[in-house]
Amino acid sequence: MMIVMGLPGAGKSSVLAGAEGTGYTLLNYGTLMFEIASKEFGLSHRDEMRTLPVAKQKKVQEAVANLLSREKGKVILDTHCSIRTPRGYLPGLPFSLLEKLHVDSLVLVTATPEEIMGRRKTDGTRVRDPEPIESVREHDAMNKSFLAAYAAHRGCPARIIYNHDGKLEDAVRQLKELLE
Amino acid sequence: MMIVMGLPGAGKSSVLAGAEGTGYTLLNYGTLMFEIASKEFGLSHRDEMRTLPVAKQKKVQEAVANLLSREKGKVILDTHCSIRTPRGYLPGLPFSLLEKLHVDSLVLVTATPEEIMGRRKTDGTRVRDPEPIESVREHDAMNKSFLAAYAAHRGCPARIIYNHDGKLEDAVRQLKELLE
Amino acid sequence: MMIVMGLPGAGKSSVLAGAEGTGYTLLNYGTLMFEIASKEFGLSHRDEMRTLPVAKQKKVQEAVANLLSREKGKVILDTHCSIRTPRGYLPGLPFSLLEKLHVDSLVLVTATPEEIMGRRKTDGTRVRDPEPIESVREHDAMNKSFLAAYAAHRGCPARIIYNHDGKLEDAVRQLKELLE
Repeated sequence: MMIVMGLPGAGKSSVLAGAEGTGYTLLNYGTLMFEIASKEFGLSHRDEMRTLPVAKQKKVQEAVANLLSREKGKVILDTHCSIRTPRGYLPGLPFSLLEKLHVDSLVLVTATPEEIMGRRKTDGTRVRDPEPIESVREHDAMNKSFLAAYAAHRGCPARIIYNHDGKLEDAVRQLKELLE
Repeated sequence: MMIVMGLPGAGKSSVLAGAEGTGYTLLNYGTLMFEIASKEFGLSHRDEMRTLPVAKQKKVQEAVANLLSREKGKVILDTHCSIRTPRGYLPGLPFSLLEKLHVDSLVLVTATPEEIMGRRKTDGTRVRDPEPIESVREHDAMNKSFLAAYAAHRGCPARIIYNHDGKLEDAVRQLKELLE
Repeated sequence: MMIVMGLPGAGKSSVLAGAEGTGYTLLNYGTLMFEIASKEFGLSHRDEMRTLPVAKQKKVQEAVANLLSREKGKVILDTHCSIRTPRGYLPGLPFSLLEKLHVDSLVLVTATPEEIMGRRKTDGTRVRDPEPIESVREHDAMNKSFLAAYAAHRGCPARIIYNHDGKLEDAVRQLKELLE
C-alpha cells in the first residue's frame, strides 16, 4: 500500500486524479470513516463526524484500521499527514494505526506556503478560517516531521512531491514514476 | 493528562502560572525526580541529580514513570521537550516513558529564537553558558521534531503555543482554551 | 554503541578518521551488508546490492542486525541517517533495527547545504546525479527529523555536529569529546 498525504491547498486530489489509470485502487480514509459511521451510528453528513463522542470515534477508527489491514499491493490510501485542530496537530498515521498496515511507501504532496495560501483563497468552499502564512508554514514543517516519524516507524521510504503552481504535470509524473 | 513543554526562555512557567485556577493539578517532572532521589538516595540539592550514577538515575526515572502512570484526567505535566546536554538533545518523553502515560494532548510553548535569547540575557540566574542564536534555533527546531514523534507515537494532538514578547496574555488564553 | 550518521558531502568519514585512536571499534553498516551479501549470495561488487531482490535484501539486513545486536560499549556504527532513493528518504535506523541495538548516543554530522553542494562538486566520483540545493536542504531537514524520531524511540541523546568548511578540527574535537 502506498499512503499519499497532503494539507489543504497542496493539491493532493489533483495529483491523485492525474495518476488515474495506473491500476491502483484509491481508498480515502475520510470516506471510509464516514461510511462506517453512517452504517454503525446512522450519520447522514460528514460534518456530524466531529460531534460523535470520542468512544464512538475510536470504534469507527478501529473498524477502518481493521478494514485497511487487509489491503496489500496496488492500493493508494489517501489521508492526512496531520490535521490542524483547535487542540493541535492530530497525526493522520498514529503508530497504532500504522503498525496494522502493509505500507510500501509514504508520499507527502506539498507546495510553498505562499502557493498553499493562494489556492485556499481561490477555493473558498473548503477552508473556513483563513490561517496566517506562518501557520501554514508551521503545519507544513510539522507534516515533514510527522512523515519522518512514520517512515522511521515502518522502515519504508518517504517521498516529498512538490506540486508547484502551473507544474501539476510534473507532480503527476513524479507520482506515476513511484507507481510503476 | 496534558503535557506542557518548552525550552529555557520560552516562558513556559509564566504561561502555566497564568493558567492557574482552571482546576488542573500541576506536576513538575524535575521536582518529582528530585523528591524521589532525595528519599531514595539522600540528595539534598537538585544539582546533585547530575552526579547520580546512571543506574540510580534510571531507578529514579522508573519510579517517576510509575507514579505518573496513575495520573489521569485534569493533570498538567510540566517537563522538557528535549534537554540540551553535552552529549546532545536528550528527549524529555522517550517512548518508554510516553507509553506508560495517559496523554490527552501535548503542548510546546516557544517563541522566536531572538526572543528566547533576549530573555536568557535578562534572566542571568538560570542559564550558565550563553548559546549562540543558531544553537537556540536548532534546539527549537529539534523540539518541534520531537513533538511530532511523540504525537505520532501516542496518536494525540500536538499544539505549539507562541509566547511572544509582550503577548503573555495571548499565550495564556490559548492554553486556557485547551484546558476548558 | 555510538551511531554516527551524515549525508554525502557532510564529511562524516573525515570526521571519523580524525577521531581515530580513541579506542573505539569502527563498524560501517554498508560494509557489513556487503560482506554478508558476498558470503550468502556471492556478490562481488557493492553496486550489485541494489539489484538483490527485496526478500534477499531483508535477509542480509536481518543478519547485520543480529550481528550488531551483540555489540556493546566502545563501538562506533557508521551509517546513514536516511538514504535518498527514487522512492524517497529511506530511514537508516528503522525502529525494527534500532530496538535491537545497544545505543548510547546518536550523532549527525552535517554542514550548510551550500558547503555540502560545494564538496559534492569537487568530489565527482561519489555522486552521480547532482541535486539542486533545495533538495540538499530538504534531505538535511529530513535527517534532523529522523534523528529526533530515533532519539525519542531509544531515549538517548542526539547530537548534531557541524563540519564547516575549513573547520574539520573543530568537528573532530567535538566528536572526540563525546568519545571520552
